[in-house]
Amino acid sequence: MLTIRRATESDWDAIWPIFHAVVREGDTYSYSPATTKEQGRALWMTPQGTTYVACRGEQVVGTYFLKPNQPGLGSHVANAGYMVDPGEAGRGVGRAMCEHSLDEARRAGFFAMQFNFVVSTNTRAVALWQKLGFQIAGTLPKAFRHQQRGLVDVYVMYRLLGEEEEERT
Amino acid sequence: MLTIRRATESDWDAIWPIFHAVVREGDTYSYSPATTKEQGRALWMTPQGTTYVACRGEQVVGTYFLKPNQPGLGSHVANAGYMVDPGEAGRGVGRAMCEHSLDEARRAGFFAMQFNFVVSTNTRAVALWQKLGFQIAGTLPKAFRHQQRGLVDVYVMYRLLGEEEEERT
Repeated sequence: MLTIRRATESDWDAIWPIFHAVVREGDTYSYSPATTKEQGRALWMTPQGTTYVACRGEQVVGTYFLKPNQPGLGSHVANAGYMVDPGEAGRGVGRAMCEHSLDEARRAGFFAMQFNFVVSTNTRAVALWQKLGFQIAGTLPKAFRHQQRGLVDVYVMYRLLGEEEEERT
Repeated sequence: MLTIRRATESDWDAIWPIFHAVVREGDTYSYSPATTKEQGRALWMTPQGTTYVACRGEQVVGTYFLKPNQPGLGSHVANAGYMVDPGEAGRGVGRAMCEHSLDEARRAGFFAMQFNFVVSTNTRAVALWQKLGFQIAGTLPKAFRHQQRGLVDVYVMYRLLGEEEEERT
C-alpha cells in the first residue's frame, strides 16, 4: 500500500539515500553526481514549492517536488521532478507520484505542467510521461552530459491540466 | 558608438529604469510587473552568472545576463536574457548584445545557448534570435499571461555554438 504525503524537514534523512542513488548515476538529472547531502537538501526541499514523499508503510520509496515553473506571469505553469528508490523500479511508484502531482497541481489552480529537462535516453520515464498525457514540446540537442553515453538530447515535456485533457492510459 | 562591458553592482541604479520599463509592460518577461527595485536586483544581478551593460558614452541603454542554464550535467548550455531601453528600440542594441553574449559564451566554453521563455507575440525578438542562429526548439502552449492579450504561447529557443554553426545573417 503506497501513501503519498507532504514531506517535512525531518524526512530529508530518508529522502537523501534515494536522491543520492539517482543522482550519482548521472543518467537522468542534471544535478552533479557529486552533490552532497546538504546541497541536495537545498535543491530538493525547495522553499519555492512543496516536496512530497511516497511511502510503503513507514519506508520512503519515492519523492517529488511541485512548484511554479516561472515567477510572475508564467506562474500558472507547474514544474515537478520525481525520484524513485532504484529497488522499487517498475512497481508503479513513479506513476502514482505523477498522478498525485497532477491532482495537487489542479487543486492549486495550475493551468499546465512542464518538465524542463527529461533526458531522452531515459526511455521508461519518457514513455510514462507520455502515457500520463505529456507531449514532447521540444528537443534540446545534446543538452545533457550522460555519464555513460556522452552528450545526449533532452526533451521539454508539457501538458495542460484542464478536465478535457484526459490521461491517455 | 556602443560599448558592452561587465556590469558592476554600482550599475544597478542605471539598469533599473530599463528593467522596470521592460517588466512593467508585462509582455515579454515572466517577472511580475510589480517587481521592486530590490527584487529586480536579486533577479538580474545574478550570482550564478555575469551581468553586462551596453552603453552609448556613459549612458546605459541595454543589459543582459549570461549563466549556465542548468547545474552539473547540463552546465555546458548557456542561458541569457536581454533588455533594451525602450527609447533605443530598433537601433541594434539587442542584436549587438546577443552577438556579444554568443562570443562570451564561446569564450567561456559553452557548447550551446538556450532561451527558456521567449514570448511568441514578441515577434521582433523571435525574428532577431532566428537571424542570429537560434531555432524554435519547442512551443509551450499558453505558458505566458500577456498583460494585454491573455494567455499566449512561449517558445524555447536553442542554438549550438560551434564554429560550424554560422550565424545566418
